[in-house]
Amino acid sequence: MFSFDIHHTERRSRAAVFHTPHGDVLTPVFMPVGTQATVKAIAPRDLTELGATMILGNTYHLYLRPGDELVARRGGLHQFMRWNNPILTDSGGFQVFSLSEMRKIDDQGVTFKSHLDGSMHRLTPEKSIKIQENLGADVIMCFDECPPPTDHEYNVISMARTHAWAERCKAAHTRTDQALFGIVQGGVFRDLREESARAINALDFLGHGIGGLAVGESKEAMLATIEWMDASLPEHKPRYLMGVGEPTDLINGVARGMDMFDCVLPTRLARHGAAFTHTGRINMRNKAFEEDDQPIDPGCACYACTTFTRAYIRHLLHVEEILGLYLMSLHNVHFLIQLMGEIRQAILADRFETFATGWLARYGGTGTTA
Amino acid sequence: MFSFDIHHTERRSRAAVFHTPHGDVLTPVFMPVGTQATVKAIAPRDLTELGATMILGNTYHLYLRPGDELVARRGGLHQFMRWNNPILTDSGGFQVFSLSEMRKIDDQGVTFKSHLDGSMHRLTPEKSIKIQENLGADVIMCFDECPPPTDHEYNVISMARTHAWAERCKAAHTRTDQALFGIVQGGVFRDLREESARAINALDFLGHGIGGLAVGESKEAMLATIEWMDASLPEHKPRYLMGVGEPTDLINGVARGMDMFDCVLPTRLARHGAAFTHTGRINMRNKAFEEDDQPIDPGCACYACTTFTRAYIRHLLHVEEILGLYLMSLHNVHFLIQLMGEIRQAILADRFETFATGWLARYGGTGTTA
Repeated sequence: MFSFDIHHTERRSRAAVFHTPHGDVLTPVFMPVGTQATVKAIAPRDLTELGATMILGNTYHLYLRPGDELVARRGGLHQFMRWNNPILTDSGGFQVFSLSEMRKIDDQGVTFKSHLDGSMHRLTPEKSIKIQENLGADVIMCFDECPPPTDHEYNVISMARTHAWAERCKAAHTRTDQALFGIVQGGVFRDLREESARAINALDFLGHGIGGLAVGESKEAMLATIEWMDASLPEHKPRYLMGVGEPTDLINGVARGMDMFDCVLPTRLARHGAAFTHTGRINMRNKAFEEDDQPIDPGCACYACTTFTRAYIRHLLHVEEILGLYLMSLHNVHFLIQLMGEIRQAILADRFETFATGWLARYGGTGTTA
Repeated sequence: MFSFDIHHTERRSRAAVFHTPHGDVLTPVFMPVGTQATVKAIAPRDLTELGATMILGNTYHLYLRPGDELVARRGGLHQFMRWNNPILTDSGGFQVFSLSEMRKIDDQGVTFKSHLDGSMHRLTPEKSIKIQENLGADVIMCFDECPPPTDHEYNVISMARTHAWAERCKAAHTRTDQALFGIVQGGVFRDLREESARAINALDFLGHGIGGLAVGESKEAMLATIEWMDASLPEHKPRYLMGVGEPTDLINGVARGMDMFDCVLPTRLARHGAAFTHTGRINMRNKAFEEDDQPIDPGCACYACTTFTRAYIRHLLHVEEILGLYLMSLHNVHFLIQLMGEIRQAILADRFETFATGWLARYGGTGTTA
C-alpha cells in the first residue's frame, strides 16, 4: 500500500515517488499545512490547481475542534474536508510542547490545558495514535517530545523518552492503510542525533521525521544536523524535515537528502502581507507598491500573479479585504510548490546543484541567514 | 452604446436585456456589491462561475481608499479589480448620509468626516460625477439625499434638493460610455413619489434608481411605494430598486416591475453565519448542524453545496477559518443569482406568478415580513 521509489539522485538530492492509499506524492515535496481541516484561506479545488499533493492536518487542533471522533463519524479527515489526496497528520506533540506554561510532562505522556477554554487534557503515545487513526491520514507521526535544541543534558533525557514513546506508538498502531513515521530527535548534537537515528531505525518505520529543528537554533547548526541525519537514516525511506518552509531551507534540505517538508510559513506570511518572489520576500503593504502594475512576482503562473497587480493586492491588504489574504496565500503556497517542482526536474536532469546555486544567488540576502 | 430591450412581460414583471459597454445584463438581475473593489471574499473568477454579470462599486469607499484618481491611473475600476463585465457605482450619497453625526448637508452638497481617520471631505453632485467618471463604471448614479422615509415634511425639502442635484449631475456628466441613472426619492408618500418621478423623468436619464427604501419602513409601505414607482416610471427604461436583496423582496420587486437589485445582504449574512436555503434562512453556526452531512441547501449547484457538508462548514465557521466565510459567501450570492435566473425563465414562459407563489410559500415565514 506504501512504497518509496527513488527515480534519480544527484549527489545527496533525491527525486522519488511516495505511493500512498490516496495517490502518489512526487518528492521532494512541500506540504501545505491545514491546521484546522483547511489550508488557511484556500479551498481544496485551489490546492489542486496549485499542484498540492499531500497536505497536513494538526492532531492537537483537530482533537480539540471538531474532535477526532466527530471526524471519524464523518468518514475521516479526507472525507470531512473533501481532500481526496494524501494527508499527513502530526502527533500533536509539537503543539502541546509549544504550550510551555500550560503543560506537564511525565514518562507516560503529557497533561495540558486547552488554549481555547483552559480545560485539561492528556496526550499519550497511545492516545495520539488513536486520534490519528480516527482522523485517518495516509501518514501519521509518532508522538515525540520536542525539546529545546541546544540543551544537551535535557536532550539526553528527552530523547530516551521519545524512543520509548516511538515503541509504544508502533505497538498501538493498528491501521494498515496508514504509514507510521518515526521521529528522530537529539537537538543540534551529533552524538545524540546518531544515537536517536539508530534507536528509531531499529523500529523499522516506513519513513522518518527529523524533529526539533527550525525552532531557534542557528542556520549552520540546522544544516549540520540535517547532514548527520542524511548519513544516519536509511536511503530507501522518505525523510521528512518537519516544520521547515523557508525557500532557502527547502533547497538546502533537498541538497542534504531530505524529501518532505511542511510549514505554516507561506499562509502565515500571506496574512502578514509578505510575499515570496524569485528575488526575495517583499511586503505587499509597502507604499512602494501603491501604483505598481506588475504582478506580485513577475513570471509567476499562479492566479494572483496572472490576474492582478501589486497595486490592487496592496489595496486589498490595506483595506483588510479577505480577497487579499486569499490571493497572497495562493501565491505563497504556489511559490513553494512550484519551487519543489523545479527542484525535482533539476534533480532528474542532473542539474540541481547548478539550479540551487543560481536560485539562491537570485533570492539574495534573505537566504541562508533568514 | 446602451439599450434596454424588453423580451417579454408577464403582468408587471419584465424579462429584458440591458446592453452596456462591458457586455449584456439579463434582467431581472441581482448585482453583488463590491464595496472596496472586491465582492467580499469572492474572486472575479468565482463571480463569473456564479453567473454574476453586473456588480457594484461604492463611490464613498473607493474615493477614500485607494482614491478614484489612483483607480483612474490604473485604467479604471474594471481594469483595477479585473472585472471585465458591467459595473455600476453608487453616488456616495447613501454612505455619506449614513454617517449621521459626521456630516452636514447644504444645498450645494455634503461635508463629512471620514469614518477612517476623521479627515474632512466634501461631496457635491459635480464631485460625485467626477469620482464616478474616474472609476469608470458602465452605470453611474446621480448624487441624491437619502432621507428618513416616513418624515413627509423633510422629504418635501430633501426631494427638491435631490431634483436640483440630478440636474447638476446631468450637466456635469461628460463620459458617453457611461449611463447616468436618475434616482427617485419621496419616502413612503405617494404624492411625493409621483412628483419625484415626474421631475426625474423630465431629465431623460437612461435608467432610474428607486432610492430611500429598505431603510426601516414597513414591508407594506415599501411594496406600495414600488407599485407607485412602477406606474410612474417609463416602461422602456431599466428600474433599479436600490439596496434590496432579501429573496422575498426580489420576487415582490420583480412582480412590481423592477429590473435591477443590489444588496450587501448575501455577503454580510455569510460573515454572520447565515445561509439562504429554499426553505428559509438557517444559521450555519447552529449546533444542530454539527453532524449534518447534507449540503447547506440540498439541490443547490454552487461549489460549497456540491462539495461540502453542513458539518464541515459549521466547523469552519466555529473555528473562524476564512474558508468558511468564502464558502458561505459563494453560496449566498449564488442563491440570489440563481433565483433571478429562475425568475427570468419563469417570466419568459409566462409562469412567473405561479413560480413566485410556490417559491414564497416554500421559503416560509421569513418572507414578506422579514
